[in-house]
Amino acid sequence: MTITERRMTLEEFLRLAEEEPPLEYWDGKVTRKVSPQGKHGRLETKFAERVNRFAEPPRLAMAITELRATFGGGSPVPDVAIYRWDRIPLDPDGAIADVFVEAPDIAVEILSPDQSLKEQIAKCRWFVDHGAQIALLFHPRERSVRLFRPDAELRVLRGADRIDLDAVLPGFELTVNDLFAMLYPG
Amino acid sequence: MTITERRMTLEEFLRLAEEEPPLEYWDGKVTRKVSPQGKHGRLETKFAERVNRFAEPPRLAMAITELRATFGGGSPVPDVAIYRWDRIPLDPDGAIADVFVEAPDIAVEILSPDQSLKEQIAKCRWFVDHGAQIALLFHPRERSVRLFRPDAELRVLRGADRIDLDAVLPGFELTVNDLFAMLYPG
Repeated sequence: MTITERRMTLEEFLRLAEEEPPLEYWDGKVTRKVSPQGKHGRLETKFAERVNRFAEPPRLAMAITELRATFGGGSPVPDVAIYRWDRIPLDPDGAIADVFVEAPDIAVEILSPDQSLKEQIAKCRWFVDHGAQIALLFHPRERSVRLFRPDAELRVLRGADRIDLDAVLPGFELTVNDLFAMLYPG
Repeated sequence: MTITERRMTLEEFLRLAEEEPPLEYWDGKVTRKVSPQGKHGRLETKFAERVNRFAEPPRLAMAITELRATFGGGSPVPDVAIYRWDRIPLDPDGAIADVFVEAPDIAVEILSPDQSLKEQIAKCRWFVDHGAQIALLFHPRERSVRLFRPDAELRVLRGADRIDLDAVLPGFELTVNDLFAMLYPG
């Protein structure tokens, strides 16, 4: 994964990483990697955990972070992808496959400080136009969640609004307040 | 995050993505992003979940996926970073900060099919040489876990071996078999 053997200083790298956020630096070498920060990582980890705690025991669905799925003529990597149990691709020995070629039932994007809201909204629309039943866009600074459905108007949820995932996860209960409370470990 | 406005076909993109795995493609546009596959994403999600279920209720530690931390003259992004509770940086309002500038207590890397084992071993050594108390390297194809400690010999764990994280998470119980069983949803 090393993309250059040119040695550089940390300061040089941090300037470079500002322009190209998905670069990684260790031991003087640059490699590429996505660069999410604390809030992004926390929300991704905890939202997937909440979904799995609800949906795995009844074998209803599974949430996976940072998974590439190639479908609908595209190959996006949603921050969290949720697949119904019977749609998870398996190897012959029953292990989860490496390659996913169908749309997730729910695709989640978390807006990073350096990302364009407009572009992430377009991406969420793309998900529901190409097979996802629901797309969610978490906006940590606004403390809002945008919920996209095929053939339905975008809904902007805040505060005590329920994040309604019943089309895929009937009975899953989480409000916008619950979601962003995950950011406060105190 | 769009890195080119040049339109390309999915086939062109997939050839490009073979050379540059962290690119993302949707709606005919290329953006950069890490490209983990099913087993990588599942192990990352579930290992963080197991750690959080054990370590969050007593406010002992927190696991975060795909978090950049800048320390020791480097800026790596471990697949899972575990910080003891009192070392988690907070904003003035108590929310988890975006910028992490200290080494995680435990850094976890999951070997992808396209990654060099030698390079990932070197990266794990770098973690424990620069402040991490433990680094773990999961090798899904080998069904093995390499455990690195500062000033200790590398241990290669398999089968019923316990993944001993007592230095940071005393009492946390997980064997190598338990870890890779997470790959089998059946």
